[in-house]
Amino acid sequence: MEPKSSSRKGHFPLGIRPLDPADRSAIEEMVVSSGKFNAEEIATALELVDEALEKGEASGYFFAVLEEEGQKSSVHGYACYGPTPLTQGVYDLYWIVVGPSAQRKGYGRRLLEFVEKDVVRRGGRMVLIETSSQESYGGTVGFYHRAGYALVARIKNFYRAGDDKLIFSKDLIPP
Amino acid sequence: MEPKSSSRKGHFPLGIRPLDPADRSAIEEMVVSSGKFNAEEIATALELVDEALEKGEASGYFFAVLEEEGQKSSVHGYACYGPTPLTQGVYDLYWIVVGPSAQRKGYGRRLLEFVEKDVVRRGGRMVLIETSSQESYGGTVGFYHRAGYALVARIKNFYRAGDDKLIFSKDLIPP
Repeated sequence: MEPKSSSRKGHFPLGIRPLDPADRSAIEEMVVSSGKFNAEEIATALELVDEALEKGEASGYFFAVLEEEGQKSSVHGYACYGPTPLTQGVYDLYWIVVGPSAQRKGYGRRLLEFVEKDVVRRGGRMVLIETSSQESYGGTVGFYHRAGYALVARIKNFYRAGDDKLIFSKDLIPP
Repeated sequence: MEPKSSSRKGHFPLGIRPLDPADRSAIEEMVVSSGKFNAEEIATALELVDEALEKGEASGYFFAVLEEEGQKSSVHGYACYGPTPLTQGVYDLYWIVVGPSAQRKGYGRRLLEFVEKDVVRRGGRMVLIETSSQESYGGTVGFYHRAGYALVARIKNFYRAGDDKLIFSKDLIPP
């Protein structure tokens, strides 16, 4: 009987699982090596990891970690999301990152679909994503559009002069 | 010599000062009696008060309290604001509340002008205000417009179905 967790090519099938303390360094490496985030943003990403490791779901930050199954050293991406304070049924997708060596394989889409299903399971109705117009040069906007997100707001010069905040949203349940 | 802190009508002139532990109950009473906020919002308002009392400006929440000078029991309104994370020079105005018995006296405008001056003093360039489209029935939108704020975004059904998030912004320094 073949072990279920190995594929013919010697890679393991991908799985999505909750956060594990061992993921912190992998997440740091992914966020840093993506080259998309500045020092303050990287620190923020890791603060959310630490909050979630310390308090679990009470932190308000839920994590989905994409890895080759059973291979904790093979984390290829992650998403961080949680209920938007003061709303009924809205969730923020705070972070979605795929490692530089794992780009263009549909991993981001896979993480996003996982998040959306989990939000619906938790009774959510809408996902919001805030991102930088600078970051969008990397194809982020196209990624969200293809996944059914609409650009619903732009705050000009939000991050700094010439760098706007874009807000995307998707109704998971028709309003 | 007349004491400087009393006016002819027996009222004290108004002053704006930082947060004091004794303000917590006055702020709670104002937020509750305004009738504009639900239980979760009231809890959030008081969490920010507690954070600021505990950590000072390191909390990221700055308070401006409007009172009759020297009369700590005569708090008529307050504002809570602070630097918007991940931005350069943007400040969020999180709360601005004037007690029900002190409406229509220009106190809100006075608090807002104090906040704007303080933001500029701290090197800020823009103030953002997020509010509910439901709350706007109470004249909030007109208040912000008259003070020079532009409605820059609307997230439909954000708080709940039919209750949108409105985002107002004002450039304190031309972009």
